Amino acid sequence: MAPTPPLAPPARGGGFQELRNAVAEIVGPTGLLTEAADIAPYETDWRGLYHGRTPFVVRPANTAEVASVVRLCAAHGVGIVPQGGNTSMVGGATPSEDASQIVLSLARMRRVRDVDAVDMTLTIEAGATWKAAQQAAEGAGALLPLSIASEGSAQVGGILATNAGGNNTVRYGNARDLVLGLEVVLADGSVIAGLRRLRKDNTGYCLRQLFVGAEGTLGIITAAVLRLVPRPVEVEVALCAVPSPEAALDLFTRFQRHDPAAVQAFEYMSGTGMDLVLAHIPGATLPLAERAEHYALVELATPRPRAGLRAAMEEVLEMALADGIVADAAIAESGARRAAIWRLREEHAEAQRLEGASVKNDVSVPVSKIPDLLRRGRAACESLIPRCRIVPFGHMGDGNIHFNIAQPVGADPAAFLARSHEIMDTVNAVVRDLGGSFSAEHGVGRLKTYLMREWRGGAELETMRRIKAALDPAGILNASAVFPVGHS
Amino acid sequence: MAPTPPLAPPARGGGFQELRNAVAEIVGPTGLLTEAADIAPYETDWRGLYHGRTPFVVRPANTAEVASVVRLCAAHGVGIVPQGGNTSMVGGATPSEDASQIVLSLARMRRVRDVDAVDMTLTIEAGATWKAAQQAAEGAGALLPLSIASEGSAQVGGILATNAGGNNTVRYGNARDLVLGLEVVLADGSVIAGLRRLRKDNTGYCLRQLFVGAEGTLGIITAAVLRLVPRPVEVEVALCAVPSPEAALDLFTRFQRHDPAAVQAFEYMSGTGMDLVLAHIPGATLPLAERAEHYALVELATPRPRAGLRAAMEEVLEMALADGIVADAAIAESGARRAAIWRLREEHAEAQRLEGASVKNDVSVPVSKIPDLLRRGRAACESLIPRCRIVPFGHMGDGNIHFNIAQPVGADPAAFLARSHEIMDTVNAVVRDLGGSFSAEHGVGRLKTYLMREWRGGAELETMRRIKAALDPAGILNASAVFPVGHS
Repeated sequence: MAPTPPLAPPARGGGFQELRNAVAEIVGPTGLLTEAADIAPYETDWRGLYHGRTPFVVRPANTAEVASVVRLCAAHGVGIVPQGGNTSMVGGATPSEDASQIVLSLARMRRVRDVDAVDMTLTIEAGATWKAAQQAAEGAGALLPLSIASEGSAQVGGILATNAGGNNTVRYGNARDLVLGLEVVLADGSVIAGLRRLRKDNTGYCLRQLFVGAEGTLGIITAAVLRLVPRPVEVEVALCAVPSPEAALDLFTRFQRHDPAAVQAFEYMSGTGMDLVLAHIPGATLPLAERAEHYALVELATPRPRAGLRAAMEEVLEMALADGIVADAAIAESGARRAAIWRLREEHAEAQRLEGASVKNDVSVPVSKIPDLLRRGRAACESLIPRCRIVPFGHMGDGNIHFNIAQPVGADPAAFLARSHEIMDTVNAVVRDLGGSFSAEHGVGRLKTYLMREWRGGAELETMRRIKAALDPAGILNASAVFPVGHS
Repeated sequence: MAPTPPLAPPARGGGFQELRNAVAEIVGPTGLLTEAADIAPYETDWRGLYHGRTPFVVRPANTAEVASVVRLCAAHGVGIVPQGGNTSMVGGATPSEDASQIVLSLARMRRVRDVDAVDMTLTIEAGATWKAAQQAAEGAGALLPLSIASEGSAQVGGILATNAGGNNTVRYGNARDLVLGLEVVLADGSVIAGLRRLRKDNTGYCLRQLFVGAEGTLGIITAAVLRLVPRPVEVEVALCAVPSPEAALDLFTRFQRHDPAAVQAFEYMSGTGMDLVLAHIPGATLPLAERAEHYALVELATPRPRAGLRAAMEEVLEMALADGIVADAAIAESGARRAAIWRLREEHAEAQRLEGASVKNDVSVPVSKIPDLLRRGRAACESLIPRCRIVPFGHMGDGNIHFNIAQPVGADPAAFLARSHEIMDTVNAVVRDLGGSFSAEHGVGRLKTYLMREWRGGAELETMRRIKAALDPAGILNASAVFPVGHS
């Protein structure tokens, strides 16, 4: 988890003078940041786990400039860290500590190139925020169906490069499922002009899906064609108290079988997590008569006119109440109530922060194994650190639980955090036994590279290495991410 | 289009004696075919475009045997053509004419390894027919939502290796959208054991999407985890006479906006094509008062109970009739009627065959460009060959039209077919201008390799070549497919 200690850093920009001048020729003065104060925000990830150093930050204005800069860096053998909104949870966009890598920010490339309400496609540049992309879709009367907490800052390029997930994956898939076409600058500065708007195209290898999720290590995404869907006209949100993780799973299955196309989100929360939210977040109230050990949040939505979603919600919940699957449920009566229920879920991270130290795990298992994960993960952690508090929450409908552990009440935060790796390993051991993944939606970044060999070693990692070597033989693209380097 | 003339062929098995004996050691007598009569079916594609030769056919019983055989072939530098149900439309599974490649059939590997009604996943071996996979899903009360005409013969491995499409792509995507995990034997005999059942997993490159659609050139898919969906409980099918291609598109858009999750298929047919079906196919009748120049077939389906799809179908069609978008429509009153309407669509290929020679194009364009494709494609072909008959039909909802051209009445079939390339080029020129693809769902195979340089040349083809060289440096896997070899 701790970053590698920095090598003796060259003076900022030292040794990079020639390259910097050549880059300035390409991007002009507005495209180059060289002052320490201007550069600082690009050198640290937002979780504050990594403090890198970079000789300068380049902010190209268009694809041709990106290509020229990459070509130049390739000629100089200088590494590049592509950076979008800098909201990585795993340090995936932070330069190394030895000031050997320049940061290439896509932030100036934010043009909507095209939006088509018949094709239901949005063609947009990588530096646009996801929020801006959502708004462009909305302007065409459509929905860009992926939503994550950081969407106001996170950029299209970063969301695609990390294959972001979020709350609506259960209905619309991950970021990769929204990508029809990509424009990518490769490590040699050549450009894949793949902004096709086709639903079917079997002409060779599916390159776009290789760049999506590669975290900028194979190429720099400069623009994308995204798939849009019709906007929902009815939305219903309910918060349910459920007697057990198994009951939560049963409830999810019932909604899925009833009308899978309407299940927009299905989130799990623990009693412990909800207690923290209610204790720390001003205005947070539980819309149920009593607290519970387990909660499920379900959102139904549909573009169908007169779909009667409220009746569908009530029907499934009444049956579940009768069968003892649900102990109590509240269906939101207004948009404000819906937002209030969602807030109970979204404020989990903040409530944990206010409670003290916590260790985060972004894991996934097959959906059917979620109850096993919750029970076995709890037992394993409590046996490791007595009185630690298990705060699992997240996207139950797609098997992705943020299995977070809060420090014991009154314990020393630093002492607790010093055991981060032990705790993560403990959770991961359960996850692995259940056929799961150590990173469901956050990616590998720099934080989790050390897990790659054990989890994806052998033929998988070897294949990834071969692809990396084939597409970026000099290793100049985001060299600190994804691959285990210097780990045995 | 014509295959390369065969090199002087070695005697069958000549030069392969040692390899054959070693392979026999691995797979035993039931796993090896060496008699000419046994081998013959594997040497020709089902369209009869290619007549390859192979020294022997190996039929491994399990993944370990596949890996051992591949390792052996790698050591001998002998090429392998993986073959599933041998239903490729583009010669993608036929060995070359010089008897230098062995055929590896997956047909004996057809075990259902797991089916899970909670996870909604099916884990199945590559040699199972797609039909068998569908039946396994059905046995668990679920639907494997991809349907193609050849599903009784086509195998899971081939369908994934070619990223098959079919009638329901508009709703569920292509084959790649159904793949959660893959087991793949690589060119060196190592095995990617990636049969994960996860909806979210961001741990390095998305290798599965690289093997899907690679047509067996990067690895041999031996098993897959496929995504299932709930079975529809209501289905409605309508045949509509529409006044123009633009009206057909408008109708599609109306259904999509009304309830995208219910649009299971949206097919276009021309008046010319329908006339051929009605003339040649016994029992085919038009359920409309008059013939039309353009038809649309729409299928709605949903797992929602009491969804009232019939009313939804009627509502959209009545509005469309009132607006002049639809001239006449028939909603099927029974399962038999639904099948009869679908038969009008499915028999298009057979009707064309009975009418004489025809040239087939499996092209796609952005959905919004379908009317342009139909008009401009027709004009271009009629100007090339006066009185040829344009018989476009297919998956309008995903932009994929089988733009087929039937010979002029009374013309010499051979003379017409001699101009196949000219006709294909004529259609492709229009497709390209509209931002489309020369192969929507059939793949490249051997038939269309010559188009790769022009259409996907530059950085895309170079990237594909690098990936191929990285994963199969000796070039032993399906060497005749996908890449342009010996073309300028």
